Amino acid sequence: MSAVPAGRSLIDVDTLNASDVETIFDQASRHLDAADELSSQPLRGRNVALLFAEPSTRTRLSFEIAARGLGAETYVIEPGASSMVKGETLVDTTRNLAALGFDMLVLRHHRAGAAAVAARHFSGSVVNAGDGWHAHPTQALLDLFTLRRALGGAHGMRGRKVVIVGDVRHSRVAKSNAWTLAGAGADVWLVGPRPWLRGVENLPATLTSDLEAGLTGAAAVMGLRVQRERMGGSSLSIDEYAEHFQITERRLARAAPDAYFMHPGPINEGIEVTREVARGPRSLVLEQVRNGVPVRMAVLALLGGPLTAPQPRDMSMAGR
Amino acid sequence: MSAVPAGRSLIDVDTLNASDVETIFDQASRHLDAADELSSQPLRGRNVALLFAEPSTRTRLSFEIAARGLGAETYVIEPGASSMVKGETLVDTTRNLAALGFDMLVLRHHRAGAAAVAARHFSGSVVNAGDGWHAHPTQALLDLFTLRRALGGAHGMRGRKVVIVGDVRHSRVAKSNAWTLAGAGADVWLVGPRPWLRGVENLPATLTSDLEAGLTGAAAVMGLRVQRERMGGSSLSIDEYAEHFQITERRLARAAPDAYFMHPGPINEGIEVTREVARGPRSLVLEQVRNGVPVRMAVLALLGGPLTAPQPRDMSMAGR
Amino acid sequence: MSAVPAGRSLIDVDTLNASDVETIFDQASRHLDAADELSSQPLRGRNVALLFAEPSTRTRLSFEIAARGLGAETYVIEPGASSMVKGETLVDTTRNLAALGFDMLVLRHHRAGAAAVAARHFSGSVVNAGDGWHAHPTQALLDLFTLRRALGGAHGMRGRKVVIVGDVRHSRVAKSNAWTLAGAGADVWLVGPRPWLRGVENLPATLTSDLEAGLTGAAAVMGLRVQRERMGGSSLSIDEYAEHFQITERRLARAAPDAYFMHPGPINEGIEVTREVARGPRSLVLEQVRNGVPVRMAVLALLGGPLTAPQPRDMSMAGR
Repeated sequence: MSAVPAGRSLIDVDTLNASDVETIFDQASRHLDAADELSSQPLRGRNVALLFAEPSTRTRLSFEIAARGLGAETYVIEPGASSMVKGETLVDTTRNLAALGFDMLVLRHHRAGAAAVAARHFSGSVVNAGDGWHAHPTQALLDLFTLRRALGGAHGMRGRKVVIVGDVRHSRVAKSNAWTLAGAGADVWLVGPRPWLRGVENLPATLTSDLEAGLTGAAAVMGLRVQRERMGGSSLSIDEYAEHFQITERRLARAAPDAYFMHPGPINEGIEVTREVARGPRSLVLEQVRNGVPVRMAVLALLGGPLTAPQPRDMSMAGR
Repeated sequence: MSAVPAGRSLIDVDTLNASDVETIFDQASRHLDAADELSSQPLRGRNVALLFAEPSTRTRLSFEIAARGLGAETYVIEPGASSMVKGETLVDTTRNLAALGFDMLVLRHHRAGAAAVAARHFSGSVVNAGDGWHAHPTQALLDLFTLRRALGGAHGMRGRKVVIVGDVRHSRVAKSNAWTLAGAGADVWLVGPRPWLRGVENLPATLTSDLEAGLTGAAAVMGLRVQRERMGGSSLSIDEYAEHFQITERRLARAAPDAYFMHPGPINEGIEVTREVARGPRSLVLEQVRNGVPVRMAVLALLGGPLTAPQPRDMSMAGR
Repeated sequence: MSAVPAGRSLIDVDTLNASDVETIFDQASRHLDAADELSSQPLRGRNVALLFAEPSTRTRLSFEIAARGLGAETYVIEPGASSMVKGETLVDTTRNLAALGFDMLVLRHHRAGAAAVAARHFSGSVVNAGDGWHAHPTQALLDLFTLRRALGGAHGMRGRKVVIVGDVRHSRVAKSNAWTLAGAGADVWLVGPRPWLRGVENLPATLTSDLEAGLTGAAAVMGLRVQRERMGGSSLSIDEYAEHFQITERRLARAAPDAYFMHPGPINEGIEVTREVARGPRSLVLEQVRNGVPVRMAVLALLGGPLTAPQPRDMSMAGR
């Protein structure tokens, strides 16, 4: 009933319905199983621009491996030497990339809303690889994909408590995850110092600064990177944050006995989480990295591949 | 009678005769029409180095898309992390690239004459992607290609007035364009403040600081990027420049009623041209970007592809 | 009897036996002869990460050309925009690259021992592309390959005097070369100011600060890059170094009449060697660059290609 139409964009998870998510995950599972074979290449002959106005080697590599695995040609544009990034507006850059014949644009940008702006001026598909504090839909998809597999499939998610801890306010990962996790039937909790819970009241989640209450009975705990340069938004020092919110083995004892730890990376070990937890047996961190490639392959193939969907539907702009 | 021989270089437009230009444009038109097919790949198995000692994402992408579209492997070398660019002379770098087995070298360099120097020390073909104030032959070719298509083909160029406005003295684009446009039969005018018209008296063009005279009856107006950091060469401030030389709808009223606006980009909207003109219905700016790929494909295929020309002729060093 | 097993690493030359070297060189010779053909692609479908935490365009290009020539997909990670390099430990980066599905990791790092650390945490093959002051095995292999060809094959090396001049202490090139050259039967001499000969007494070589004694009768002289920023380790100024240790035509008169000059590049002409010598008829410098590609193709193919060796043997960790 769905499958994402060619020539459309993925800007945020809020336009994905449950059936879209299933389609993406089915496809991702096939890519995951076939990782070692030379698969059919639905993006053969397509040119994909990876415009990372904000650097992220990990996400860039994940998208690039995914796109090339589907047969696409990839072109990385990073801010360093790029007049395109510095001297031009995003609208001009997008129009130029369209004129150069790019079929898809994977965009990481420091400004919330950047991907939606680009989609308005780009002829092909735009995939949001993170825009400011707004959204990071493929991260949320790969996180859900990873957690579902760990919890035994779609049914394993229903009613399970998932806790996201940290600077929720500034985290596009937390926001996109809240939507997809809640959509999958999870009981989402967002935990952090008060100032970091402001402005996210609309998310489908329980908000609290009480870490112990948050962790109690949780099936999975997701840490967020705490950035020294953003502590200004809080009244806490980074040491005080670690003292009150660091995820430790002792604190995790309140969670379900087999609770998973997740983190989008890169991790500040010893700040938002101890090394013991981050590298422990319940950590899904490397599994998240691993699943990023097949999930992104699925998204790219569905957006950019030959149109096979029975009823094309716009993933990008529709209201929820 | 021509077709450019394999193993030769393109350093400047002044060595291209009319027949060479036709060959390149015929080929470019074929690439333009076949943009969506996987075409035959005349550069398959060839390695192309894209050495951009001066950054330019747009031109780099255009060449890279062109080269890969022809089946070549591309290797981008940008100054950032490159000891090759910083620690070595251009001659050493060129010899090293030849020793590494590169078949073609696309070179952007801040020094006029760099491409000619490189061609002397490189075993394969060198394509000048802009050398200091000297030349930018592929830009001039794609500009002519674009304008000819807009004006109805080669015959549409004859006797038509084409005006280039700005810092002509420091513009390799203006210089290369003057030659190719004049060669195509256009009546070329170069307009700018006096100091920016010095040293270009040998170009086949009318020079004037009178913008109104320049614009009168023009079929096309090409703006040049005015760079704050180069205003020192002029007695004008950038605001004075804009006041006297900015291309506006009102000023364009003196041109032919259907006059085109062109610009090599990136554009400083509100300085050398208004946004209204730059994005207006007569603007060919995105068409120039679009045509960059097939024109560069044609140049790369002719220089680097299998030798099929009946009478090889050197494009690189011959006097005009 | 050997051939290097798939899935293993090359960290240092000290684990290569004579038969391994022959296997690599046989393979390299085949790649060298077949440079213009599209050869079979033993790394087709493999993803190779080129992580250059310390920049080196020349070595990076050489490895990248080699890997792509074997059919691999290459992904360059350079420090510039990379949180992966800056914000993470090498162990985390390596684990993330493994999780992303990379089959091979070519690693340049400023810390001695980095490649061995990475090999412990990476599931595929690690190729050391230079780690601090420790080792640069592929450089040593290509240097030996080059010199052997110049001296008439393996037999031409036996008993010939090869002199390495410069900052031996800080040179991974000198150290790796000492092992492979001595292993090939050469009489290795290391020449430099006293402080630069400290800590290398275990190398299979004669150490001296007497350049004339070193050069006398030498079949080949290898210069090392003298770096202004490392002169602090010496009591000499860079001018004094040049005065006493620069390789000149006059000083080379003491060597064998047909003595070769070698250098790993980039060369500081006028410091460690005169331009006359560096570019003279006996210079193998560009030959070294040329041979880097086939030698690295051989190493990558043997480490990463399908397992065909009769008796797999670990190249990476075994004691010597």
